[in-house]
Amino acid sequence: MTLRRRMRALPLSQIRLTDSFWTRYQRVLIEETLPAEYDQIVATSRLANFHRVTGKAEGTHEGIYFNDSDVYKYVEACAYGLAVGERLASKEACDRVRRQMDEAIDSVVAAQDPDGYINTFFQLKHPTLKWRNLSMLHEMYCGGHLIEAGVACFQALGDRRLLDVSIRFADHVMSIFGPNGRPGYCGHQEIELALVRLADATADKKYREFARWMVEERGKSPSVFLRELDDEGAMTLNPGLRHHLMKDGRYQGEYAQDHAPIREHTEVVGHAVRAMYFYIAAADLADGQGDEELELALERIWNNLTHKRMYVTGGIGPSSKNEGFTGDYDLPNLTAYAETCASVGLIFWGQKMLELTGNGEYADIVERALYNGAISGISLDGRAFFYDNPLESRGQHQRVPWFGCACCPPNIARLLGALGHYVASVSEGAFFLHIAAGLEAECTFNGVATRIRVESNYPWSGEVKIHVEPERPVRFALHVRIPDWSEEVGTDLPRAEEEATYETGYAVFDRTWKAAEVLTVDLGVKPKWVESDPRVRDNLGRAALTFGPLVYCAEQHDLGYAPQLFTADTEMEMVEAKEKILEGVTTLTVEGTYDVELFTDSLYADVGTTEVREGSAKFVPYYAWCNRGATNMQVWVRKL
Amino acid sequence: MTLRRRMRALPLSQIRLTDSFWTRYQRVLIEETLPAEYDQIVATSRLANFHRVTGKAEGTHEGIYFNDSDVYKYVEACAYGLAVGERLASKEACDRVRRQMDEAIDSVVAAQDPDGYINTFFQLKHPTLKWRNLSMLHEMYCGGHLIEAGVACFQALGDRRLLDVSIRFADHVMSIFGPNGRPGYCGHQEIELALVRLADATADKKYREFARWMVEERGKSPSVFLRELDDEGAMTLNPGLRHHLMKDGRYQGEYAQDHAPIREHTEVVGHAVRAMYFYIAAADLADGQGDEELELALERIWNNLTHKRMYVTGGIGPSSKNEGFTGDYDLPNLTAYAETCASVGLIFWGQKMLELTGNGEYADIVERALYNGAISGISLDGRAFFYDNPLESRGQHQRVPWFGCACCPPNIARLLGALGHYVASVSEGAFFLHIAAGLEAECTFNGVATRIRVESNYPWSGEVKIHVEPERPVRFALHVRIPDWSEEVGTDLPRAEEEATYETGYAVFDRTWKAAEVLTVDLGVKPKWVESDPRVRDNLGRAALTFGPLVYCAEQHDLGYAPQLFTADTEMEMVEAKEKILEGVTTLTVEGTYDVELFTDSLYADVGTTEVREGSAKFVPYYAWCNRGATNMQVWVRKL
Repeated sequence: MTLRRRMRALPLSQIRLTDSFWTRYQRVLIEETLPAEYDQIVATSRLANFHRVTGKAEGTHEGIYFNDSDVYKYVEACAYGLAVGERLASKEACDRVRRQMDEAIDSVVAAQDPDGYINTFFQLKHPTLKWRNLSMLHEMYCGGHLIEAGVACFQALGDRRLLDVSIRFADHVMSIFGPNGRPGYCGHQEIELALVRLADATADKKYREFARWMVEERGKSPSVFLRELDDEGAMTLNPGLRHHLMKDGRYQGEYAQDHAPIREHTEVVGHAVRAMYFYIAAADLADGQGDEELELALERIWNNLTHKRMYVTGGIGPSSKNEGFTGDYDLPNLTAYAETCASVGLIFWGQKMLELTGNGEYADIVERALYNGAISGISLDGRAFFYDNPLESRGQHQRVPWFGCACCPPNIARLLGALGHYVASVSEGAFFLHIAAGLEAECTFNGVATRIRVESNYPWSGEVKIHVEPERPVRFALHVRIPDWSEEVGTDLPRAEEEATYETGYAVFDRTWKAAEVLTVDLGVKPKWVESDPRVRDNLGRAALTFGPLVYCAEQHDLGYAPQLFTADTEMEMVEAKEKILEGVTTLTVEGTYDVELFTDSLYADVGTTEVREGSAKFVPYYAWCNRGATNMQVWVRKL
Repeated sequence: MTLRRRMRALPLSQIRLTDSFWTRYQRVLIEETLPAEYDQIVATSRLANFHRVTGKAEGTHEGIYFNDSDVYKYVEACAYGLAVGERLASKEACDRVRRQMDEAIDSVVAAQDPDGYINTFFQLKHPTLKWRNLSMLHEMYCGGHLIEAGVACFQALGDRRLLDVSIRFADHVMSIFGPNGRPGYCGHQEIELALVRLADATADKKYREFARWMVEERGKSPSVFLRELDDEGAMTLNPGLRHHLMKDGRYQGEYAQDHAPIREHTEVVGHAVRAMYFYIAAADLADGQGDEELELALERIWNNLTHKRMYVTGGIGPSSKNEGFTGDYDLPNLTAYAETCASVGLIFWGQKMLELTGNGEYADIVERALYNGAISGISLDGRAFFYDNPLESRGQHQRVPWFGCACCPPNIARLLGALGHYVASVSEGAFFLHIAAGLEAECTFNGVATRIRVESNYPWSGEVKIHVEPERPVRFALHVRIPDWSEEVGTDLPRAEEEATYETGYAVFDRTWKAAEVLTVDLGVKPKWVESDPRVRDNLGRAALTFGPLVYCAEQHDLGYAPQLFTADTEMEMVEAKEKILEGVTTLTVEGTYDVELFTDSLYADVGTTEVREGSAKFVPYYAWCNRGATNMQVWVRKL
């Protein structure tokens, strides 16, 4: 791999989603999700904690020590939502989001200490313990989300208020830590990637270099955390987490990716969200440095993750014990943790790798996570969330309005608001359509303003019309991603002087575009059964149904019995039907057999006791499961 | 159900096992297991804790607060082992066990306080906290095992030393607690069943009545434990266990079967070993009382347990979280807890129900647990143990020499020593052969001394010869259990005046026996595939192979690949072979197919990518698995 910055996202002001699938999510984001999250942030005293610092409210810090970060992520989501929301939602709804966001921003601004420090848990409860328990107490993690919010408000809305807070905070951290100061980095990575964003937003390279230092320091031996773990004063605030880093009396940093310097990492280990945030920063830092060692490390880790440790839904991190990774091919379905935030993080990292390399394999994973394991984290009404996203349910699992540890709701919100960053990119003389979602983009190629409009009904259809509308004829390369699941691709370009070339996952139309030309592409969205590498023991004898980028599942709602009883005949034709259920989906009906739930009085009897009947089963997209009440669900169904 | 004491066990002096399967275990018990457990008890300061009470050793209590109980259970196992061991093991080995047991007994005797109290954790470390945390600190539980050891030494060896300690302890407890004293019972049941045994051994009914009071008090509202949970002083010693009884701020006694009075129990809930020990006592107390309400409750709970919550191996309690029960049909294989002690407890309870009712269905379960989920807990060399007994392994699981919480090793030891109590019973004018193991029993029917000799090669063959050798002709009913798995039974009695009758699981030969008659029975041990009730989701599409009472499994050792890859053709004939591996077993070779462990670079690909080959797989008995190194193992294999 030679990493090269091949592309960059368009500002949200220059790219608008128009397809019905994603604009519905974005409208719901403005009208439902962000107001609901604001209400939760208020009801749980997350906002009050800031007011308590300024004396505007009484009392001390309430809630978990990293609750500030939820406010920051909510603000970041508001910034994106407002940047794209006016076309999609009523003025009233947009005004409400802006008002509530403004209140949150003002609360944060007011709570910053004169020296730049801000963290309401420490400010209110433990001022003497600041920076004494980096491994467990997420002080820099919260600051990272502050910086991301600051950059987002600035870039999406032109609002500097939080950016200034962020700069002061970053400068404060850099006044304490650094190559010439105290060694240290956060147990939960986040500030590294945020500092890179801050460097981009401020055009001040020092933040990027500081992030680089933190990334490179991590994993050296002995760990900076070791000292903290021996300091009982510092550990008292969160002794329960100690076991994550100390095993059999020895320091083992895997949980926080602190087991070895990043260049030596070979597998993705530990807490999944930490790992994703870490590698996002590292990918950014590798950019343009010719640092082959780091590039190869990232590629190695990515391959381990996506070839051995990722659910078919793009869920990652199977275990609730460490909220993270276990071993290769260990992907249990019923107990899958597959945290919403981890899939969101996977999208962020994959997009970064895609932008750096131009390799469509990264986009394949981004798309997989986006259309399945990430948005399964939010209900169709936008007001309830999964923390974990299992691939089988026996009826207990359901979304809830909020969590004590509420990282996921604002994380999925900020992803949905910024979707325009993920579907397409540009580079010098080129436009990349990563995901065939309907959109309108305003670009400039060789000084020629060019509008690119994509019309599609993705993911329900693979038929895509790409309107290229330059102000005057201009040459540029239109790259259209051909997804990994695509078996037959049809393209039609009326004035096609030449065939498209194919480059790392993209069909490339490099030509001079005249006014209002239309390229049509058919990606061939159709039902397809997939199976797993047989080393995934949990999926042996099973298949999962897919439809373009979507993974499907069977729910008891549609079958009338638990889908675990169903066995699919994967050789029979399937019936597609557009239905109004679940906000409009294509359902797939499959032939097979099912075990009848009748048995003897005993729990065990001779083989053949269970009656097996022929029957068909209707499957629905996984992302939409559990929107009709808690139920039995299964992705990997038995196959005949 | 009308409970009636139909039968009683013979003293170990009157029943000797002769078959090769169990005498091997008993020889190993004397020669290997008991000395190894003694060494562990010494090495872990379990014995030293007693010496520290008397000042014979220095220091304070070491280890877990219930470690005394392991010493008591070890002594109980020694008593049984010595009662049966002389025929099986060298004099040297028996002498060593006796010497080590004597040392343990003397240590315990010396450590008892003048008032009868004994518990080295409280005596050494927390004398002021005695009896203040009944719910969590196992004070009476330890006392219960003391009493069981005292009764065992007295009944098996005629040794009164620990019986006297037990009587003093029981009297001490009764001086504090009782209907006219303080309310209270132990968080971990055990003393109830022990007091019933003490009543039998001493012919003093007061212990039985005290046990009855404890059993009936349990589950009343508000619980006696509630007060303790609010008493921070009492809870400090074990705050981590609080969550088992307090959920969402409310007391929920299920974990300790303290949620409702026993007569209202409908399902088996909570910690599995606690539940078993509780219901053993209750079954004993129901005996002969005409207490239909209690009888029905026990039958109801038993049926819930064995019809909805029991593994095919007789393992019970699927979850490690509460070491116990979850919901109906929740029987995951890979993560099965199925504690060795819980299967041992199930055997104890089942035998009690069998003795009370004469219903062979209880013996079916006892046999299932005995030949599978209980003895899987001990290695064939007798020196390593499983705590949990999963029905699938991906290679991590293996037996170890000891545990911090070491309840299982001495529990399986005391079961193996006392096996003579489980294979046969007598009642007025009747002999019951529950399990067709080779044995010699000395009985008396109508004053006529009668030897009954069973010759068999059980469980490898169902052919059984029962020699009835009365001193002079005598009439009695010989009951031979026909197991639930038996499909065709052949009997042959040369001088057969009449056909056998069939009564609740037993073929009954009620006749006058002359000298040296032989009844031959063939129970029809043969390979058989079984399946589960389809509500056991984890076993859908799967079958387990059985052979008489034995459940089989496939290990990678024999297949050359992970057995999870194998799919059995359950309609093909199987090949039986007697082999010398695993101390001598019958292996069963099965036809089927297996998935080849080769795939694309991706984790997921089109269905049909995996190559499937025809092949056969050799299965071995489950109890013997993991005796050739940690490996992949599966009981419930996929079926075509």
